[in-house]
Amino acid sequence: MPPTTLLRRTTLAFPRTSTLSTQTRTISAYGYTQSKALTFRDYGDPASVLSLHKHSISPPHGSALTLRFLASPINPADINQIQGVYPSKPTFTTSLGTAHPLAVGGNEGVAEVIALGDAAKQSGFAKGDWVFMRAPGFGTWRTHAAAEAGQLVKLREEAREGISAVQAGTVSVNPCTAYQMLRGFGNLKEGQWFMQNGANSGVGRAAIQLAKVWGYKSINVIRSRTGEDAAQKEEELKEELKAIGADVVITDAELQAREMRDRIKEITNGGRERIGLALNCVSGKPAIAMAKLVGAGADFVTYGAMSKQPLTIPASLLIFKDIRFHGFWVSRWSEQNPEDKVKMVEHVLELTRKGEFRDSPMDEIRWEWETTGEELVEKVAQTLEGYRSGKGVFVFGDSTK
Amino acid sequence: MPPTTLLRRTTLAFPRTSTLSTQTRTISAYGYTQSKALTFRDYGDPASVLSLHKHSISPPHGSALTLRFLASPINPADINQIQGVYPSKPTFTTSLGTAHPLAVGGNEGVAEVIALGDAAKQSGFAKGDWVFMRAPGFGTWRTHAAAEAGQLVKLREEAREGISAVQAGTVSVNPCTAYQMLRGFGNLKEGQWFMQNGANSGVGRAAIQLAKVWGYKSINVIRSRTGEDAAQKEEELKEELKAIGADVVITDAELQAREMRDRIKEITNGGRERIGLALNCVSGKPAIAMAKLVGAGADFVTYGAMSKQPLTIPASLLIFKDIRFHGFWVSRWSEQNPEDKVKMVEHVLELTRKGEFRDSPMDEIRWEWETTGEELVEKVAQTLEGYRSGKGVFVFGDSTK
Repeated sequence: MPPTTLLRRTTLAFPRTSTLSTQTRTISAYGYTQSKALTFRDYGDPASVLSLHKHSISPPHGSALTLRFLASPINPADINQIQGVYPSKPTFTTSLGTAHPLAVGGNEGVAEVIALGDAAKQSGFAKGDWVFMRAPGFGTWRTHAAAEAGQLVKLREEAREGISAVQAGTVSVNPCTAYQMLRGFGNLKEGQWFMQNGANSGVGRAAIQLAKVWGYKSINVIRSRTGEDAAQKEEELKEELKAIGADVVITDAELQAREMRDRIKEITNGGRERIGLALNCVSGKPAIAMAKLVGAGADFVTYGAMSKQPLTIPASLLIFKDIRFHGFWVSRWSEQNPEDKVKMVEHVLELTRKGEFRDSPMDEIRWEWETTGEELVEKVAQTLEGYRSGKGVFVFGDSTK
Repeated sequence: MPPTTLLRRTTLAFPRTSTLSTQTRTISAYGYTQSKALTFRDYGDPASVLSLHKHSISPPHGSALTLRFLASPINPADINQIQGVYPSKPTFTTSLGTAHPLAVGGNEGVAEVIALGDAAKQSGFAKGDWVFMRAPGFGTWRTHAAAEAGQLVKLREEAREGISAVQAGTVSVNPCTAYQMLRGFGNLKEGQWFMQNGANSGVGRAAIQLAKVWGYKSINVIRSRTGEDAAQKEEELKEELKAIGADVVITDAELQAREMRDRIKEITNGGRERIGLALNCVSGKPAIAMAKLVGAGADFVTYGAMSKQPLTIPASLLIFKDIRFHGFWVSRWSEQNPEDKVKMVEHVLELTRKGEFRDSPMDEIRWEWETTGEELVEKVAQTLEGYRSGKGVFVFGDSTK
């Protein structure tokens, strides 16, 4: 958990709410930094509980640093965290200059070091460095933040080359989830198969591309579309996923059809090529349909439940087919393996630079100094609806410098 | 699978059905052995499809051996196999002298070598040896059988000392299931906890006793009793299980009560002592109640579904609590690890000899040469009902020598 005493209470010289000030320069002549943050004091619906809060950050001393955020995505887990239904809790603190404790939304992002104390310099940080948060719960939906050196991981200069802020700011959750599930379970060898649902998600697209790098073959399940042009939409999405490296793409309906068993057999060379791994973010019935198609002894990794249904597993799948059901939560994994995490991030960024890995479609939300709280909260609420082309990511404009 | 050509068709000199003969000497002057076997030609309800079939076995040559069974238990899996709902199938063969292929019931047991060919002697077998079947599907509910050396595992003379036929004949399934689940999952250290349901079953009682040997502590769930004297029956069973080493015994109803979380915390020293493993043969709701009480990252091993219900797992138990759901099937494990299996059997028998391991309550069913098929089939059918004090085990009398 981040310390709560880093930020000095705002003084009269630096009015604490945005309604009292329209100043755009965020660093004052005295070294104080002005910041705006999307905060909440109670759990609830993001549209109701989030508000933009302005405060000031005192000049950093010792191991403290002042950060300017560059890019911070809106992940579904961030929404669940605000709703109070996520096991990883945010930090509520009065250090942003309020009488009642506030938490800042967001868990992922990349920031630039704009000022730092001597001890932070001795820890290897410098002005201009790009940094990630070592653990979730920091609060990344804000223009600026005070941090301690121990809370941050620096992105090496070489790893940053040719990488955009959005690329760096969105690599820690989805690509890392896909990466670690493919490498940490199933013991897949080159040429072997895995299966996944939610293949059109950020994690799904990352898994398709990373699998190509390691020579794994993928069977990808997408949600069946409805309406008049359903077939065409499905066909387009299938082609899109194949273009980034998917070997086979099927719909939910195809997955659950009786003839799928034969088709899978055909696809896997008469069943001689083993499907050793399944990645599940849907749960419910479609997940069990997938579990029935993988090979005996396969690892079945759940990282989501988009259907809002549990996994109803017949005991025979466990006892006789020896399917091993695991869960994966990138937050826990990252906290337990901070060094592997940094290596993984740098590897994904290297693949990005080489053109072997492309980000999922992103909906960039500009956050300028003058952007209102209403506009920002609306964007968060839209992410909640889940009908957008891609994932929302706050991109901080030059006016927040 | 056992070869099907070991048994020569019966000749006119040796009538093939028991209705034609009441002879009690099972070995003729010509070295032919008379055998009776509980067989079935079609899958179905044991009471309908099982019948006692008499046939003769020719003198063994080469690597063949003739066996006399000493003790063969009736396990629930044997019943499921006859019903045709078990994934491990029996061997249907015409080698017992019938035009239509027959299978012999039963998968576990111990037999004595009564005659053998020269090659079998060179493989290390001798007359009087006690042997187990290397793989399931052999058919152990019979007085005698022909076998190949490769199908058998010999129990070393030293391991046999002080061990009864019933003890040897019932060690391969239940005690070995408990043994391997406790040792192969959960990575328990001395002083750590595991939890199990069906604690009164053969596997459950074995797990309680083996845990004591290794210094593991157990929380045991038994089925809630009904009727007027339910409380007294539950209390008696709790005391009985504590007497063999159970640390804590609770009923299904207690398990699912709200206050159980606090009680578990108390039991495990304020939650500081981790419950790293759960063994489940019940499935359904009570199993999930158990999964919610074990520690984060625990292994949850399913080896049965007595409730006939699936495991309905909330995704959060997988993702956030990191519970790993596995299955265990002793048949598969034994086939994959034949040498470890022999060592395990010998270890359990050693513990039995030392008085550190006692068999579960057994209902010994005498099988004499003259015992009728009706009597034997009735005993099998009673096991199916599951209301008996213990487990049925055929014990072959002197008249079958």
